[in-house]
Amino acid sequence: MRTAVLSLAIASLLPVVSVAAPKNIIYMIGDGMGPSYVAAYRYYQHNPADATVANTVYDDLLTGMASTYPDDETLVTDSAAAATALATGIKSFNGAIAVNRQHIPIGTMMQLAKRLGKANGIVASSQVNHATPAAFLAHSSSRRNMNDIADMYLDYRINGKPVADLIFGGGTDYFVRDDRNLVQGFTELGYQYTDDYRQLSTLTRLPAMALLAESGLPAVLNSDNDGMLAPLTEKALQLLSPAKQGFVLMVEGSQIDWCGHDNDIACAMAEMNDFAKAISVARAYVDANPDTLLIVTADHETGGLSLGAHGVYQWRPDVIKKVKATGREIVKQLQQLQDPQQISERYTALTGITLEQAQLQLLLSALQNTDDKVARSQVLRFISDASFTGWTSGGHTAADVQVMAYGKNADEFKGFMDNTSIAKKLIRYIQHAQ
Amino acid sequence: MRTAVLSLAIASLLPVVSVAAPKNIIYMIGDGMGPSYVAAYRYYQHNPADATVANTVYDDLLTGMASTYPDDETLVTDSAAAATALATGIKSFNGAIAVNRQHIPIGTMMQLAKRLGKANGIVASSQVNHATPAAFLAHSSSRRNMNDIADMYLDYRINGKPVADLIFGGGTDYFVRDDRNLVQGFTELGYQYTDDYRQLSTLTRLPAMALLAESGLPAVLNSDNDGMLAPLTEKALQLLSPAKQGFVLMVEGSQIDWCGHDNDIACAMAEMNDFAKAISVARAYVDANPDTLLIVTADHETGGLSLGAHGVYQWRPDVIKKVKATGREIVKQLQQLQDPQQISERYTALTGITLEQAQLQLLLSALQNTDDKVARSQVLRFISDASFTGWTSGGHTAADVQVMAYGKNADEFKGFMDNTSIAKKLIRYIQHAQ
Repeated sequence: MRTAVLSLAIASLLPVVSVAAPKNIIYMIGDGMGPSYVAAYRYYQHNPADATVANTVYDDLLTGMASTYPDDETLVTDSAAAATALATGIKSFNGAIAVNRQHIPIGTMMQLAKRLGKANGIVASSQVNHATPAAFLAHSSSRRNMNDIADMYLDYRINGKPVADLIFGGGTDYFVRDDRNLVQGFTELGYQYTDDYRQLSTLTRLPAMALLAESGLPAVLNSDNDGMLAPLTEKALQLLSPAKQGFVLMVEGSQIDWCGHDNDIACAMAEMNDFAKAISVARAYVDANPDTLLIVTADHETGGLSLGAHGVYQWRPDVIKKVKATGREIVKQLQQLQDPQQISERYTALTGITLEQAQLQLLLSALQNTDDKVARSQVLRFISDASFTGWTSGGHTAADVQVMAYGKNADEFKGFMDNTSIAKKLIRYIQHAQ
Repeated sequence: MRTAVLSLAIASLLPVVSVAAPKNIIYMIGDGMGPSYVAAYRYYQHNPADATVANTVYDDLLTGMASTYPDDETLVTDSAAAATALATGIKSFNGAIAVNRQHIPIGTMMQLAKRLGKANGIVASSQVNHATPAAFLAHSSSRRNMNDIADMYLDYRINGKPVADLIFGGGTDYFVRDDRNLVQGFTELGYQYTDDYRQLSTLTRLPAMALLAESGLPAVLNSDNDGMLAPLTEKALQLLSPAKQGFVLMVEGSQIDWCGHDNDIACAMAEMNDFAKAISVARAYVDANPDTLLIVTADHETGGLSLGAHGVYQWRPDVIKKVKATGREIVKQLQQLQDPQQISERYTALTGITLEQAQLQLLLSALQNTDDKVARSQVLRFISDASFTGWTSGGHTAADVQVMAYGKNADEFKGFMDNTSIAKKLIRYIQHAQ
């Protein structure tokens, strides 16, 4: 009896754990989207005729910043370690897909959601088995095991079913292979499937899968449209919305990072625009469904981007807006030409930049190189120089990234935090929404 | 009668303007302190033996971010235009000291404070008439008019008195000139004065002035102590604290920017530490005096700093911690030596870096250059390369900067804002605290 009373007394001293958990979570990750990308996109969107610079959706939602360092001595994370932190709340080594430093699998928030009966899905503009979505759905000691990771999307079962109820992005190269047809496996389990963007409307319920490219989706800057991320996000929300116990959706703006690795600022701005439009779709969903939390962040910064370079106090988005194709596409087109005059004219047609004779010589020489990277680097350097865009790396940096939050519990993402804190809070919500 | 009723009815429809204004404002500006500096300082402070990376005072206080663009087409601000925005709430052109694009003076928050009977002061680690403090106290079409600006500190009167009740920093070169002794002018008006840091305790009441160097204060990295900013801030708060109607204090970590212009990461980290300690002093003051608001921000980013460079996924604060002097000081010492072996050894003694033969040749060649900048650049490049620190510029960039807030009304500085919004809010508080 005295023990019982004592227990009660102790219990009353314990803090009351009251978690008002959102029913739905939309978690959006801009791969490589460091703070300079967010500022750059604002000025890129700005119309110089306007008196003031308008906020972007990124600005509207800003609540804090997060550190991104991995669980090793480097301080600079790769996308796999960062995604592991963002999906599990536990840091790991660079390359790790939801495994810890001892290479032991760590449970992810999507697996937890599935186990607890919530619907879940991933949308990415990369192949769907790329590092970021992979760390939400699978486990591997290396992000490079991309076929193994794709296999695990089908083979790793919770309550007898694959983890993800919805998988949208690219990746037929990995899911329809000579040695194994994973898409067939998914359709046999009842997944609706399309590999045609125009047939997206044929997906009418969960589970559903759309693999719309062999690998990553087409670069937005090279596309006729403004990118697929917003329509895919809208479709995903439409399919996930009826889930009685709510859903967890991860949307990755995957290729911001790829542009960053290439030091391709026009490419990055087009991907930022694609991602921004997807965020606006999610924000509208939250407005209509207030029991939803929207979190936007990045896994790390790519390229050491700066607005202004080489001592010049200026950044020129007007130069960037004139660029019509990615560096990769420009090189591809220039390689098909022989005549220096034609090459020069095509370069100007694609970038708005008129090359001086010395620049043209540099370009022609770079185009002779057997390594495409040399030509690409030269093609892009003219754009960076003309716009005063600075880069320090073809890799990642240890910059903090922004955290943006909207909707239910958004207030819990204020100020400075580590990337693992974001995941830990979301996991707590998923547990307590039951 | 009906008119009166109508007036009342309209009045009741107007929003209720309720400003719970803090009595005291401490406004701290890290010149050049872009987001990468804040992250860098965290990792620089981190002890690798610790399991997790501890927050710095910057992290603890983070509430939002601010854009910094000036009122011209460049998007990249200088310190003068940024300080004008931060001191007046109005953007101007690069170089402007509290004047607008038509070169017409704009009232500053310090002038307002003085007019309304509040005490005010400025503390800077630069000369006190440098761009940032200047925009709080004076007006000029160009930051370069440094003697004119110094003159204005004495000559511009409000209620018959100079604007600032407290002026701490460097600058005897500008205040004790052959053509005019401004210090004498200040002392004749009753200012207590010292030019000796060890005599700071002789300052016992307002108005007070301390000019502790000919120009900027000594670079912290070259000093025996950890910098003067924290003791100066403490002294300033002690003198301002009795003011019956409260005070406005601006403290600038001026030389973070100077290190950034040199691309000198060890120099920058030492200045960040000096500034961090001053912020801790201010935070403790707020804890003891809750009717105080502490705001910390930066005017812009300098150098395009990145943690990680050249494709390497690593940043090495351990390399930076071994550096014992600024690039300028290292060059000065090396220039006094002739023997290559001695030069190599001195370089290693000052930086912890052992030069390979090819590197030594580069250094010796750079030391022959009549322009010190060439030698400095080479001396510092070895440090940046060894620590994987990236830079894109010797100037500024258009990065957003962090906003940190603590104490009364800190909640009003959450999320994304323009730099002018910070000043507008503070000015509103100064007006409404009456």
